Amino acid sequence: MKTQIKGTYVIGDAEAIASLYEAGGFGRPRDGSLQLRFVEAAYLLSRGRIEIFKNGQNLDFDPFIHFAAQQEDFFELKYIVYKDLKERGYSVQSSASDFRVYPRGGKPGKMPAKSYVFVRSERVPIPLSELLSLMNEAQNVRKQFILAVVDEESDITFYDVKRADAAGRFEGGMSAPFPQEAAGMNKLAADAVLFKERVILADRKISELLYTKVFFGKMMDDDRLLLSLPEARYLAERGVLKLSGMDGTSLSTNVFSKNASLIDAEFEAKYTVYQDLKERGFVPKTGFKFGTHFRVYRKAEPSDKIPHSEFLLHVISAGHEFKLPVTSGAVRLANSVRKRMIYAADFGGKIEYIEFERIKM
Amino acid sequence: MKTQIKGTYVIGDAEAIASLYEAGGFGRPRDGSLQLRFVEAAYLLSRGRIEIFKNGQNLDFDPFIHFAAQQEDFFELKYIVYKDLKERGYSVQSSASDFRVYPRGGKPGKMPAKSYVFVRSERVPIPLSELLSLMNEAQNVRKQFILAVVDEESDITFYDVKRADAAGRFEGGMSAPFPQEAAGMNKLAADAVLFKERVILADRKISELLYTKVFFGKMMDDDRLLLSLPEARYLAERGVLKLSGMDGTSLSTNVFSKNASLIDAEFEAKYTVYQDLKERGFVPKTGFKFGTHFRVYRKAEPSDKIPHSEFLLHVISAGHEFKLPVTSGAVRLANSVRKRMIYAADFGGKIEYIEFERIKM
Repeated sequence: MKTQIKGTYVIGDAEAIASLYEAGGFGRPRDGSLQLRFVEAAYLLSRGRIEIFKNGQNLDFDPFIHFAAQQEDFFELKYIVYKDLKERGYSVQSSASDFRVYPRGGKPGKMPAKSYVFVRSERVPIPLSELLSLMNEAQNVRKQFILAVVDEESDITFYDVKRADAAGRFEGGMSAPFPQEAAGMNKLAADAVLFKERVILADRKISELLYTKVFFGKMMDDDRLLLSLPEARYLAERGVLKLSGMDGTSLSTNVFSKNASLIDAEFEAKYTVYQDLKERGFVPKTGFKFGTHFRVYRKAEPSDKIPHSEFLLHVISAGHEFKLPVTSGAVRLANSVRKRMIYAADFGGKIEYIEFERIKM
Repeated sequence: MKTQIKGTYVIGDAEAIASLYEAGGFGRPRDGSLQLRFVEAAYLLSRGRIEIFKNGQNLDFDPFIHFAAQQEDFFELKYIVYKDLKERGYSVQSSASDFRVYPRGGKPGKMPAKSYVFVRSERVPIPLSELLSLMNEAQNVRKQFILAVVDEESDITFYDVKRADAAGRFEGGMSAPFPQEAAGMNKLAADAVLFKERVILADRKISELLYTKVFFGKMMDDDRLLLSLPEARYLAERGVLKLSGMDGTSLSTNVFSKNASLIDAEFEAKYTVYQDLKERGFVPKTGFKFGTHFRVYRKAEPSDKIPHSEFLLHVISAGHEFKLPVTSGAVRLANSVRKRMIYAADFGGKIEYIEFERIKM
């Protein structure tokens, strides 16, 4: 079947509408002819379904893709993904910026698309703002948003990118908002000392209550609890700790937080998210072993066995750009230890929790 | 047993030499008295083995560690690690900068130390130059070099950091230096086209030989091979490929490499290591899925089954600083997929391959 290159499309006739669009879901009918995107045309050409002419000259596959790649940004990336999806049996509609993917057996015009697939090279970072706007577009029309990342080796990794509350409320299982009540402490307050980047609480009873009931800190010995900086601030703000320096001078939470920010430039950003997670009933602990800011438990009372932490969480700024190889490693690691990978960004008080789930198409 | 703080030591008498040094391996005898480091003294104090006096005043554990942490940088980090090692049954000798750890049952003066343990906070990056100099110090006296990283939660992760050839020659199992010979190509040369960040080779026979015999690229379809930028340069430099642009203009490897560097600022650094790995008989492929530059096979001939890749490799500059949470994530991911984690840095022609192995003490 003969088709012609016109501008950024390959155009087929009424017969093409019948055999390619109606039977196969390729292209979009427009004014009695069929508009095929370059990736669709390349795929049909590779299958011998069409011939492509440019100014009267018949183009083979290689000249056509050389031409198409010069005309359209990321043509070869999109072709790699389009071909992969087609070969997996999906019906795919190609638009300028993305693919609409229909459930297997479905096709354009017969049923709604299930997913939007957005194609990206591993080399091009994605600003968080762009990602959120793409996610919102998909979410507004109730589509799954899928990011297809093509790597140096031309392999594709698919991510279902969504808000962490997409499948239900994003909250943990710790009920009491205040550790004192949860730990049965009845407004006890303990002295604790800042040792540069950790806090030592030397009170056997309170240490044990905080550790075993609400999983704060780590026991240093039978009498003492080692607390992280966010844990110490959280407890101090709730009147559970009275903080002082090693020389005995008392530290307001304000001064403590300033010290903490000198030690860890990301302290305030991390603390904002830490506090939000606590309010949601989660138990955030450091994610150092996984290269993230936090590992998070839905519920943890180490007096029993410490359970499996449910997700890893990394705090990013509103202006963050996802470097895809870094994101890929983080998601892979989370998956390999059976956890979800979630990013958190503070947009002036509202924290967005964004999950990257690696999926097989 | 009474001891006195003097300067940066806690000093015991002749009796202390007998009961603490000779029986327990604590401290160092000097001029008839025993010099204890602050961490040793804190440990002995916590066990009720000594009393510590300062200007005639008896110090309890908490006042003593407040004092010690003000006198000695990272005292609390060192104490956490020292205590952990002692409780695991090791004999440990403390020096200003590190711990010497003796095999279980051994002790200072009776047998040589097995390892040097260097303690670091997760928050303090380690420059590669510092790491190499510490590794060299240990290597010169045939000690294992162990990095003990204390995280925010005061948990310790131990890494055995060593050159990748520490346990034998660092080389792969691919014998022929040139892909043509290995692939049985007899100086065939194929045209290949640069599509921005990948190269397409449209020659069925050569594509198949390169893919199945020496694991270059990834088949795009039955006729075409997708090559990564380092693969394409490597093949072009060896006369296997003739490169051109999408418009048909021929590309020298020089111009190709300049283009590649515009696409990937790290291209030259990565290529230097890529080439060295090839010369060592390894098969490097992209490590995108693991967040590293390469995953590396000892040997791979995809005509059979593609084997398990043996290590992940990340290329760093000679001026690199290891950010420990990032390193921790990379090593954890490598381990979770049963691979080694290796960093490579080019020191003007000599490439150092440094492996981080997470160990349990």
